[in-house]
Amino acid sequence: MTTLDSTKSHLEPGAGPGEDISELGRSLRKTTGGRYGYVRDLARDILPPEIMVRRADMSIQEARDWCRDSLQILTDNGLSTSGYPTEFGGLGDVGRSAVDFEMAAHGDLSTTVKSGVQFGLFGGAVVNLGTQWHHDTFLADIMSMALPGCYAMTEIGHGSDVASLQTTLNYDAETSELVVNSPTRLSQKAYIGGAGQDARMAVVYGQLWVGEDCHGVHAAMVPIRDENGADLPGVTTGDHGAKGGLAGVDNGTLLFDHVRVPRQMLLNRYGGITEDGVYESDIENPNRRFFTMLGTLVRGRISIAAGGGAAARKALSIATRYATMRHQFEAPGHDPEVLLIDYLAHQRKLFPGIATAYALMFAQNELVERLQTLSEAPEKDQEAQRELETRAAGMKAMSTRFANDKIQMAREACGGAGYMAENGFTLLRRDADVFATFEGDNTVLLQLVAKGLLTNYKETFGDLDSKGMVQFVARSFGGAVIERTAARPLINRLIDAASRRSEEDTLLDRGWHLSMFEDRERHVLETVANRMRAASKAGKDSFDTFNDVQDHVLMAARTHMDRVILEAFVAGIDACEDPHAAALLSKVCDLYCLSSLETDAGWFQQHNRMSATRAKAVTAQVNACCKELRSDAIPLVEGMGFPIEWLGSSMLTEDRWTR
Amino acid sequence: MTTLDSTKSHLEPGAGPGEDISELGRSLRKTTGGRYGYVRDLARDILPPEIMVRRADMSIQEARDWCRDSLQILTDNGLSTSGYPTEFGGLGDVGRSAVDFEMAAHGDLSTTVKSGVQFGLFGGAVVNLGTQWHHDTFLADIMSMALPGCYAMTEIGHGSDVASLQTTLNYDAETSELVVNSPTRLSQKAYIGGAGQDARMAVVYGQLWVGEDCHGVHAAMVPIRDENGADLPGVTTGDHGAKGGLAGVDNGTLLFDHVRVPRQMLLNRYGGITEDGVYESDIENPNRRFFTMLGTLVRGRISIAAGGGAAARKALSIATRYATMRHQFEAPGHDPEVLLIDYLAHQRKLFPGIATAYALMFAQNELVERLQTLSEAPEKDQEAQRELETRAAGMKAMSTRFANDKIQMAREACGGAGYMAENGFTLLRRDADVFATFEGDNTVLLQLVAKGLLTNYKETFGDLDSKGMVQFVARSFGGAVIERTAARPLINRLIDAASRRSEEDTLLDRGWHLSMFEDRERHVLETVANRMRAASKAGKDSFDTFNDVQDHVLMAARTHMDRVILEAFVAGIDACEDPHAAALLSKVCDLYCLSSLETDAGWFQQHNRMSATRAKAVTAQVNACCKELRSDAIPLVEGMGFPIEWLGSSMLTEDRWTR
Repeated sequence: MTTLDSTKSHLEPGAGPGEDISELGRSLRKTTGGRYGYVRDLARDILPPEIMVRRADMSIQEARDWCRDSLQILTDNGLSTSGYPTEFGGLGDVGRSAVDFEMAAHGDLSTTVKSGVQFGLFGGAVVNLGTQWHHDTFLADIMSMALPGCYAMTEIGHGSDVASLQTTLNYDAETSELVVNSPTRLSQKAYIGGAGQDARMAVVYGQLWVGEDCHGVHAAMVPIRDENGADLPGVTTGDHGAKGGLAGVDNGTLLFDHVRVPRQMLLNRYGGITEDGVYESDIENPNRRFFTMLGTLVRGRISIAAGGGAAARKALSIATRYATMRHQFEAPGHDPEVLLIDYLAHQRKLFPGIATAYALMFAQNELVERLQTLSEAPEKDQEAQRELETRAAGMKAMSTRFANDKIQMAREACGGAGYMAENGFTLLRRDADVFATFEGDNTVLLQLVAKGLLTNYKETFGDLDSKGMVQFVARSFGGAVIERTAARPLINRLIDAASRRSEEDTLLDRGWHLSMFEDRERHVLETVANRMRAASKAGKDSFDTFNDVQDHVLMAARTHMDRVILEAFVAGIDACEDPHAAALLSKVCDLYCLSSLETDAGWFQQHNRMSATRAKAVTAQVNACCKELRSDAIPLVEGMGFPIEWLGSSMLTEDRWTR
Repeated sequence: MTTLDSTKSHLEPGAGPGEDISELGRSLRKTTGGRYGYVRDLARDILPPEIMVRRADMSIQEARDWCRDSLQILTDNGLSTSGYPTEFGGLGDVGRSAVDFEMAAHGDLSTTVKSGVQFGLFGGAVVNLGTQWHHDTFLADIMSMALPGCYAMTEIGHGSDVASLQTTLNYDAETSELVVNSPTRLSQKAYIGGAGQDARMAVVYGQLWVGEDCHGVHAAMVPIRDENGADLPGVTTGDHGAKGGLAGVDNGTLLFDHVRVPRQMLLNRYGGITEDGVYESDIENPNRRFFTMLGTLVRGRISIAAGGGAAARKALSIATRYATMRHQFEAPGHDPEVLLIDYLAHQRKLFPGIATAYALMFAQNELVERLQTLSEAPEKDQEAQRELETRAAGMKAMSTRFANDKIQMAREACGGAGYMAENGFTLLRRDADVFATFEGDNTVLLQLVAKGLLTNYKETFGDLDSKGMVQFVARSFGGAVIERTAARPLINRLIDAASRRSEEDTLLDRGWHLSMFEDRERHVLETVANRMRAASKAGKDSFDTFNDVQDHVLMAARTHMDRVILEAFVAGIDACEDPHAAALLSKVCDLYCLSSLETDAGWFQQHNRMSATRAKAVTAQVNACCKELRSDAIPLVEGMGFPIEWLGSSMLTEDRWTR
């Protein structure tokens, strides 16, 4: 069944590929490794290509078997359960669990997503929404994979709109049981990873009814298959079969026809039913209760953001290495022919992507550290939690959009070779695609970010006149609505310094970049708030008020994330101890900033924030930055963290392009 | 072996899906059908979903078999060989052959590409580069598929740079044979469709040597496999196996070790060897000879452009239909919930894409008609042929870039459902990917367009001062360099009318749109020529002169194509006989124009061609156009030409979303 070398089922440090990389590359890895750099190093030390690179020509069943086996090896070696409570053998380190996920995502994304289903979604729900009984009863088997599970939230009819799920969990007081029912076609659970074949147990979300009262969406553990894999009575599973990618993940459907489980199976941390059949919850407001439960999705989103970043870096690593080996067309002074990487158009494909990849690495580290810090805090800080959720939603959307765009670009940048499975893009492209959709559709998530930014605003909003609104926005920028990154004093210092220079000097001035990013975000948010207020005053209904500015709302979210990501990058460079690496990173950061300013040059000019002359200068400087980074292409690739063997790209063999 | 219904091996009119579409949709189809509308209607009448929609879960071998069988059915029904000479049973209609290809591309793209390999590349080379003996000897078997072939141009080391191919065709005067040899690793023929399994004969490109003289790249027919499929002596075939997509196409490699074929096998229309062993050609200039031979690729590029357009329209059709069926989130006035298509952000995903799809349909029709007109002309018009090649290169790049972007967007716009193979995106996404690469890498093709625009310029260029250059550009715009579309008088009239209006009135004025597109193109071209001239004067080497402005060069090509496409759209609307359809198309054209202006708003402001106020108004008007088109979404989808059964998307079943 397994195609893996069984002698590797317990990995020893050093079993992985030995790497010969530059000092600069190593230094970049150290800087981008962050708090969990040692986890990344460990993974590079012990994970061999055999479990990181899947063949592209497997049948669906072969892929499923291969992924299950690979995941078992990762799990047996302690790389899946860092986030679990120490009393059950975990490390109690949820930050590390997101990094474990990211390192798995350096390899096969089907295996990674299967890990996310079992340990993040299914197991995570039991940990976070369950109580001691659930932990004692199920966690050991979940952590060993003896109890494979799935996370049955999405229905055919409702995905993004979780509050409207149609599956019901009805409490039967006579038998002290929950009756799980999905009576309509649209209430069928769909796209559920694990439901197609492997899962024995599902965490099922549905409307909880006790007597005549509906208490909104809750989750319960429901056995779905017996030990032989047959559907249990009342459960009908379905298998989605072929998909756009993720062949190794058995996505499927679930229908429940009055399936009964004991009352205890309700995951009752935030709302449960007493022995006397009474609903009780510590959180009175049903809306807040719902969002508190959903808040446990935060780690999943952070992990997907991490996975998207890794996938993009893999694609950029392959394409950049290829561009340094592959020649095409003769030209004087280029012997034998011009390397792809020496073409400006090719540099423009690769280097701005590399720059964003670095920016995202620092922002991701900051996010993971914040996740871990919050989880360690003795008391729950509600505001910090909400900020984390907003940030996670935004990072997931930005990172997975970036991954999809750059993987395709990188494939094309390798021409026909890029289309051959042996060169590493085929599965990557397919598998990363759906990262834009699961754990929250990217468009919906960006709206969530914008709503987060506008929340306090809306609360105080009402009849505020323009002056009040401006004051509000000003206050927001100093305070809670637009939360600050950790590097605030540094950022302020840079911005202040830039404001004292003349315009000509500032093109490469970080303070100018920062102030442009900040100004863009502030103005977009201010004006969208303005427009919504005006629409509301003019009597537009709430849907139109929102919908007519939806493109503007999305831009508010995007520009917010751009600024947050930049600040993380700046802080990361500031913390870099190697001056050589820091200098290179600073150039990379220049390109990240200028590319973003170039992309939005229309907006900046529209809003009198950039002159025509300056806009042209920005474009010229983007080209100059690309040219300058060309000589450091390989260290930059090394810094993105992939041992060459993990890239699964046979065209990168050294002698392949020798003439 | 075949999975097709054998009773359908000879299709009768009416075997295809009967369609119930709106009058408006039908009228749009008529308008967008162009000269070959009857070919499109015929295909819709006779081609059943069974040969248009391939299952996504086939193994590579199953997919190859299915595609071969499907193609045989298309061929047996006369849908593959319209372009072949009438004396061999073709229709002598190369324009129609591109439309046949396009209609095949409404179905499975693997089958379509396999058709392109056999009938376009392999057979096309025999028709266009061969002479009577080749036609008499091989065409009948090629046309019936009794002789499956492949087109062995690309090598591992050289794809875009065909002139540098390393395979050699050495003439042996003693035996009157050609010796085909590919001695180095980089001279291996690679990615060749058909070489992996099916092809028995290859058209092999290599450097032709006669005695001591190399006459540059020529092509010869070389048998590669015997009737049992075994490699012939000296030939080593390889199979690429799994790829990013096109599972039904057997791409492979070819190595030749001194393989001998008779002298007659050289395709000698533009250059051959006499019985006395002397090289002779009607075209003295080797460079011109080479480009004349490559010019025969034009039909392939036009076909790929057509296929890309069809693929994009399929994705847009699925996503738009889905958006009219699928609800998400409650809002007042929307019962039961809001349809996806009512969200502004969703409209912004779909409608600008639909608008571009329509624009490309008209531009494609114009291109195909020009191809056919030129092929009918008794004497070859060299200038017109060069213009056609430039236009074909540009359309291929624009259309396939568009396809890749929109298929991904459409998949995401259908969320998790879009990722399931049963809903129609999976194979489409995979198969269309490489359209960006084969028949010419898109970046290289855009450069070719720009070079076409700059050619006359370079010839007269030399020491011209600024005044001379400006005169040159002015002249170019009136004459040959930037060729005019057919609709010139109409375009001039519209532009003149617009120039007499005040700015406020012109946002929806076609003349204003046209003048903005034209002005953008002219200025970009002028300035890139200027920069190259300055660099050359300053003593930059030729590579740097070109490379430092490569991004600018690509923009010149893109803005040229934008203008050409718009003019075709305008001419198409002018020719539309149904005023209802024409009015709708005019709105669609508004959106096409304004989206393009919005995308380049930064550039227009940088160059003082658009005020900040106007740029904001353009964005507002794009939103307004989207909103306005929403009510005509279904007729617009119908007009894009896909019977719903051809979409292969089970989620579009009518009762699927009933609550």
